[in-house]
Amino acid sequence: MTLYLNLANLLGTRIEQGLYRPGDRLPSVRALSQEHGVSLSTVQQAYRELEDRGLARPQPKSGYYVPSARPVAELPQVSRTAQRPVEVSQWDQVLAQVANSPNESVLQLGRGRPDISQPTLRPLLRSLSRLSRRQDLNGLTYGNIYGDIGLREQVSRLLLDSGCRIPAEDIVITTGCHEALSAALRAICEPGDIVAVDSPSFHGVMQALKGFGMKALELPSDPLTGISLEALELALEQWPIKVIQLTPTCNNPLGYIMPEASKRALLTLAQRYDVAIIEDDVYGDLAYRYPRPRTIKSFDEDGRVLLCSSFSKTLAPGLRIGWIAPGRYLDRVLHMKYMGTGSTAQLPQLALAEFIRDGHFEPHVRRMRAQYQHSRDQMQEWIRRYFPAGTKVSQPQGSFMIWVELPEGFDSQRLNRELLPQGVQIAPGSIFSAAGKYRNCLRMNYAARPDAEVEAAVRLVGETAARLLEGR
Amino acid sequence: MTLYLNLANLLGTRIEQGLYRPGDRLPSVRALSQEHGVSLSTVQQAYRELEDRGLARPQPKSGYYVPSARPVAELPQVSRTAQRPVEVSQWDQVLAQVANSPNESVLQLGRGRPDISQPTLRPLLRSLSRLSRRQDLNGLTYGNIYGDIGLREQVSRLLLDSGCRIPAEDIVITTGCHEALSAALRAICEPGDIVAVDSPSFHGVMQALKGFGMKALELPSDPLTGISLEALELALEQWPIKVIQLTPTCNNPLGYIMPEASKRALLTLAQRYDVAIIEDDVYGDLAYRYPRPRTIKSFDEDGRVLLCSSFSKTLAPGLRIGWIAPGRYLDRVLHMKYMGTGSTAQLPQLALAEFIRDGHFEPHVRRMRAQYQHSRDQMQEWIRRYFPAGTKVSQPQGSFMIWVELPEGFDSQRLNRELLPQGVQIAPGSIFSAAGKYRNCLRMNYAARPDAEVEAAVRLVGETAARLLEGR
Repeated sequence: MTLYLNLANLLGTRIEQGLYRPGDRLPSVRALSQEHGVSLSTVQQAYRELEDRGLARPQPKSGYYVPSARPVAELPQVSRTAQRPVEVSQWDQVLAQVANSPNESVLQLGRGRPDISQPTLRPLLRSLSRLSRRQDLNGLTYGNIYGDIGLREQVSRLLLDSGCRIPAEDIVITTGCHEALSAALRAICEPGDIVAVDSPSFHGVMQALKGFGMKALELPSDPLTGISLEALELALEQWPIKVIQLTPTCNNPLGYIMPEASKRALLTLAQRYDVAIIEDDVYGDLAYRYPRPRTIKSFDEDGRVLLCSSFSKTLAPGLRIGWIAPGRYLDRVLHMKYMGTGSTAQLPQLALAEFIRDGHFEPHVRRMRAQYQHSRDQMQEWIRRYFPAGTKVSQPQGSFMIWVELPEGFDSQRLNRELLPQGVQIAPGSIFSAAGKYRNCLRMNYAARPDAEVEAAVRLVGETAARLLEGR
Repeated sequence: MTLYLNLANLLGTRIEQGLYRPGDRLPSVRALSQEHGVSLSTVQQAYRELEDRGLARPQPKSGYYVPSARPVAELPQVSRTAQRPVEVSQWDQVLAQVANSPNESVLQLGRGRPDISQPTLRPLLRSLSRLSRRQDLNGLTYGNIYGDIGLREQVSRLLLDSGCRIPAEDIVITTGCHEALSAALRAICEPGDIVAVDSPSFHGVMQALKGFGMKALELPSDPLTGISLEALELALEQWPIKVIQLTPTCNNPLGYIMPEASKRALLTLAQRYDVAIIEDDVYGDLAYRYPRPRTIKSFDEDGRVLLCSSFSKTLAPGLRIGWIAPGRYLDRVLHMKYMGTGSTAQLPQLALAEFIRDGHFEPHVRRMRAQYQHSRDQMQEWIRRYFPAGTKVSQPQGSFMIWVELPEGFDSQRLNRELLPQGVQIAPGSIFSAAGKYRNCLRMNYAARPDAEVEAAVRLVGETAARLLEGR
């Protein structure tokens, strides 16, 4: 992360937080140079960056101002849901997302892939390579079903950042967060059971519910604060809900961080109605704010929260290494893991343990957080520039995914069909709903460095959307 | 494989097949030397090897003979089963097997681990190491859900050996055979459904049935020819069976190879009653006979057979790479795979594809087959020597696992408890039955080279068993 980007991010955050308001004059180049101990040209670079992001406007001979007429994109609506348990559909649409190979020519704005091209990831490759050459071949045999104890100890240490004190013995390594979520659901629910979910919500969980014959009760979520606790309480009154499944920190797809007070209140509700919570924290370490937000699990006292996560978003998805801290459900979860995959691959576990132990995890994640925050601003600016007027956009507080809402009646599946022959793919909103809602929405990935190719793709999406809207 | 071991195996097979009978004089050293173009000392070494295995007896000044009073161990009984669908138990016992780490001090005779210490596996490590260093990082990202096409093409080619012509497009890579079996079961059955299984049978499948709430209908199996077709037909008449799940080639745990005619007859039955077949072929490539036996899948014409396998037994289990050829159930299986793990790790797929493409698979498997056959003979000899009189032993035709039957009333779980403090673990027979039958049986692994440590362990098992038998 260069100096000027650091400074631009800092000022950008202050502008977004309202410290400087539309029309305000921003600090002079000289003042910032003195305050932060950087050169004048670094400050000028930072201001040019803010200009690009639409956050600062130069006024000749006067300095930089917060754009007064800045067309702030509206937030998406608070989602409206069916308020009754439904069966899950949409598998065809999901399959279309996951059936592409990584090196195909389509620019996959739709998938949840992190940027894996940064040099801070190289020590991991070196560990993998070195361990592969070792003669004792531990990496090639069956591990034990819990996973490598060295890696579990490192995960236990990393969990302290989110306020969790979980001993390594209570952590089980899984084949990605996917297996963690899948094992958690089956550990608690039978077919026919009702699972309360935030909505919109990760399609992997939706499809797991479908496959296990469970029903989803989709609860409305606010694009800034998350799942509606009022709706949840009503639902708990009304339906025999077995478990609440949600992604409260850097939500996928909406990007919000549920406030700590809401997290506590949700846990209290779960205790009162005696239901379990499956907390997906796979993006939690990518929150832009420091220190990272606490998990619901960190407040859990009676083991009712099953915390699921992985290294797929922070490091590299191809490793397929995740984990679960299943609280009181440990034995059931182990059984489900045994049924599903037997054990998790050893070699990537050994390499990851080494990577974290040697202190490479934090610098990499720090770098990626800054990059993603920068890319988010750029992506929002492009959406403002290239999408039809009235497009609503989420304000992600972490991770690398943005949610775009077009007017009611817009068809993002059709948009995808139009885009694919031109080599671009987005994720249609309907796959984030059990009932196939949010057809007028879409999710895009901004993990890649915001270069001309990505800009052209976003422009194509926006212009195609406008064309479809006019034609209807 | 050295020359003398090749010759010993050849002669051993002829003796077992009855070409030479007890009391017969075996060919002279000179004759064999001429016939096979090897030195006299090589033939002498081979005879000493056969002597060790109890298959040849020297008679001074006369040559070698087949031992006339050779105490051939009896085969285990044809299994008797409940003949009605039962729910699966035994998870605690299975967990005890899989909760150990590979490098712990216990000699794990109980687990299904192959020997991964042979030099023919080294090119795989080299590929893994080299691919880890590559800059384009394809190995670190999400693969597509079907798996790497390069590997699927290699699997398609390998399948020709078992008589299958399956295009790469119809093969899905999985996280071990475990995920293949688990996805296959869920692709066809709902909770409460009845699955017909050979018995005794792989505990992974038993536990999957338990976890999915399915019922097992255990069918008696002959230790030489496998599942009883008569019992199967009766069961198909009587119960609404959804699928037949079995391991017909190099059965786990009994080691038999179901005759080709029986395989065809079983398929005909499945067609007549319109049920699917889940065929576990994970040990099929380790059949001692060449060419390897055909699979049931190779006779399948209407896509009702789901063939499941992996590289865990032929190469290395820690890779967690398996596959499934799901026939007409492709879409359902994909959905189950997506739910369970999302996708399979990329790096080991790329390394495996290279290993097979470069011609390293066949030499390695050839070597391992010969080693395992030799170890089987040694293991049988040790069991004869150290186990109580009347112990019955399977005659494995492939793989590296042997089934031992002690008198009715013997408790192999107690045996395991006695052995563990002494650093040895066997697999109690009860985990191979849904209903916890076969408590008087146990399974042992003979993958490791038969050295003094293994001999001491087998001796300990036999003597402890004898002590328990006397004490009861």
